[in-house]
Amino acid sequence: MRKVAVVGIGHSRFGSRDDVNLAELGFEAIKGALQDADLTQKDIPFVAIGTFGHWSEELLPGIVVADYAGLNPAGLMRCEAACATGSAAARLAYLTVASGMEDIAMAVGVEKMTEVDTPSAVELIGRAANYFWEFENFGVTFPGYYAMHATAHMVRFGTKEEHLAMVAVKNHRYGALNPYAHFQREITVEEALRSRIIAWPLRLYDCCPISDGAAAVIFASEEEAKEITDTPVWVKGMGVASDTANMNKRETYVGLKATAIAAKQAYKMASIEPADVDVAVVHDCFTIAEILAYEDLGFCEKGKGAKLIQEEETYIGGKIPVNVDGGLKAKGHPIGATGCSMFAEITRQLRGDAGKRQVPLKKGIGLIHNVGGTGHYCYVSILGR
Amino acid sequence: MRKVAVVGIGHSRFGSRDDVNLAELGFEAIKGALQDADLTQKDIPFVAIGTFGHWSEELLPGIVVADYAGLNPAGLMRCEAACATGSAAARLAYLTVASGMEDIAMAVGVEKMTEVDTPSAVELIGRAANYFWEFENFGVTFPGYYAMHATAHMVRFGTKEEHLAMVAVKNHRYGALNPYAHFQREITVEEALRSRIIAWPLRLYDCCPISDGAAAVIFASEEEAKEITDTPVWVKGMGVASDTANMNKRETYVGLKATAIAAKQAYKMASIEPADVDVAVVHDCFTIAEILAYEDLGFCEKGKGAKLIQEEETYIGGKIPVNVDGGLKAKGHPIGATGCSMFAEITRQLRGDAGKRQVPLKKGIGLIHNVGGTGHYCYVSILGR
Repeated sequence: MRKVAVVGIGHSRFGSRDDVNLAELGFEAIKGALQDADLTQKDIPFVAIGTFGHWSEELLPGIVVADYAGLNPAGLMRCEAACATGSAAARLAYLTVASGMEDIAMAVGVEKMTEVDTPSAVELIGRAANYFWEFENFGVTFPGYYAMHATAHMVRFGTKEEHLAMVAVKNHRYGALNPYAHFQREITVEEALRSRIIAWPLRLYDCCPISDGAAAVIFASEEEAKEITDTPVWVKGMGVASDTANMNKRETYVGLKATAIAAKQAYKMASIEPADVDVAVVHDCFTIAEILAYEDLGFCEKGKGAKLIQEEETYIGGKIPVNVDGGLKAKGHPIGATGCSMFAEITRQLRGDAGKRQVPLKKGIGLIHNVGGTGHYCYVSILGR
Repeated sequence: MRKVAVVGIGHSRFGSRDDVNLAELGFEAIKGALQDADLTQKDIPFVAIGTFGHWSEELLPGIVVADYAGLNPAGLMRCEAACATGSAAARLAYLTVASGMEDIAMAVGVEKMTEVDTPSAVELIGRAANYFWEFENFGVTFPGYYAMHATAHMVRFGTKEEHLAMVAVKNHRYGALNPYAHFQREITVEEALRSRIIAWPLRLYDCCPISDGAAAVIFASEEEAKEITDTPVWVKGMGVASDTANMNKRETYVGLKATAIAAKQAYKMASIEPADVDVAVVHDCFTIAEILAYEDLGFCEKGKGAKLIQEEETYIGGKIPVNVDGGLKAKGHPIGATGCSMFAEITRQLRGDAGKRQVPLKKGIGLIHNVGGTGHYCYVSILGR
């Protein structure tokens, strides 16, 4: 397999973006990535577009984004893996270069969720779990699924609502330092615990918002990367796994099996251990999901996730800083954009370009963890300097 | 790039399949491909699912199909490229193996279009062109787009309605010999010309039907392929290109630019000329599309496509047999399944297993041409013995 580097990143502001349409939003990220790599559209022979869709009557969001951005006649494919859609697009762009098929490829993640009203968005997200059984028969929405994970974790390991709130507080603190973040305001544990219940024990501040946003990542072969940039960030490892959509078929609720499998693959490919990771972005669609990720990724033992946040080990300066871009929780979670945004953040960190949010680098290794559905999909990627 | 072979193919019956749900339909193809390669689900580390979706309330058809088929915890991604979705999945599975990421990968194409009534299906397909301009403002449906191609070809090159009918007659003849085909009945030129007008000059018999169906293809590395089968069929070339969705931005209506670009890439990668191709499956969503494909793929000069069908050069025994499985026209076009079905047919032909539909093999080369939208996407793949 050829060595592949991230050589360009672009990012739109996340939030409620009624100032742009889907194609314009995508272009903000595409333009940024092209400028970052000092390339033009003509230099990009293949584009993987990650977008979940369903927010408008437009059925081919991939072509609309590519067309508007002037990327035709590049090879094009739309990728989907529920909330891990951005990582799916990144994987395809990576494989396109790693295989030798092309020397450069771009992944674009874009989503404009606020095209529909909030109740419709909540319904659409709920339908992205196990539709015909759990959603339609029992009316389970997405917070409901993660509430089951949270209560299981509380019963089994003594995790408390305060621990969930601590995750929110950390991610809001870093969101406040990220100019692209949907929420740029710090909160306190007390505020989080006073916020209204969505699906107990998950409260408003335990849930990521409904956001619009886009991010883009350009991958290049070793030879091209050296031409393009002095600060290539190399893809060291990738893993991907799937799991049943049926919660009632899962072996356990206190972790995501797909995460554990995908992480193992990625660590093996990168020849590293969890302790080698300097900085991680993990899929905190709900605060409990970040705690599960700490454990499933091996940053602590199973059941010790609450302790990790309580001891502030996932803050900058801690053992393993996590979601110092604000995470899905504060940065926002425009579904298809999230995975590509994660690649952008880890690239920025490993370049040493993260400003006030910069983590100290020891081994120069960053990890990306992106989950689709209620753990139906998990993509883990490891980047290194 | 590593050598990659097709080592297993599976195919459901195409047609109106109200006897199965989406997952069961997908399983028919997955089971067939596993049996063909003498593998089990555990042997498949990565699955690319090609499905366009939108036919039911289920938003994650990929995970539903994989889950039911027992493919978890394999790595999983859903691919979409409009009507070229099946080829997109095949490309991802191919790259997964070609890159060295995995030694085996499966592409599954599946679509259950008859979940909605016919007017809704026609609307959904129409929305898969340029939605906000051409569909919503002018009400152009899919036959309307291809009617513009047909009239342009008639004016410029003297192509006649009879030539379109001849394509339908050929494809129905071969569909009648294909047990998987939606339509298994021969028709005459007179019948085709008497059928009702859908969008002049396209009549009912110029249009492919709305079908349910599934097909699956297993790709393997050279080493694995030699273990698995005595008749590996090698991937020799692949090309992919995109074009604007806006018909009013196209340079010409008498051909698809994306086809010409993708074909050039694939021929170059395979180091062959169009004349080396023994058998081809092309994207005949409408009869005119097959004539455009003859020309854009280089089987004849631009403008000579009508002559090629009139002289029966695309029949078995002719210069270049095309769509001897019935094509989209008679075999059916369950969107996501079509590309994978094309891989299955060319594999069958190159193995010499196509029975009454077998073409004589000279160089042992077959070509797959799959178009998405009105030429927004084009995927061309070349297989060889």
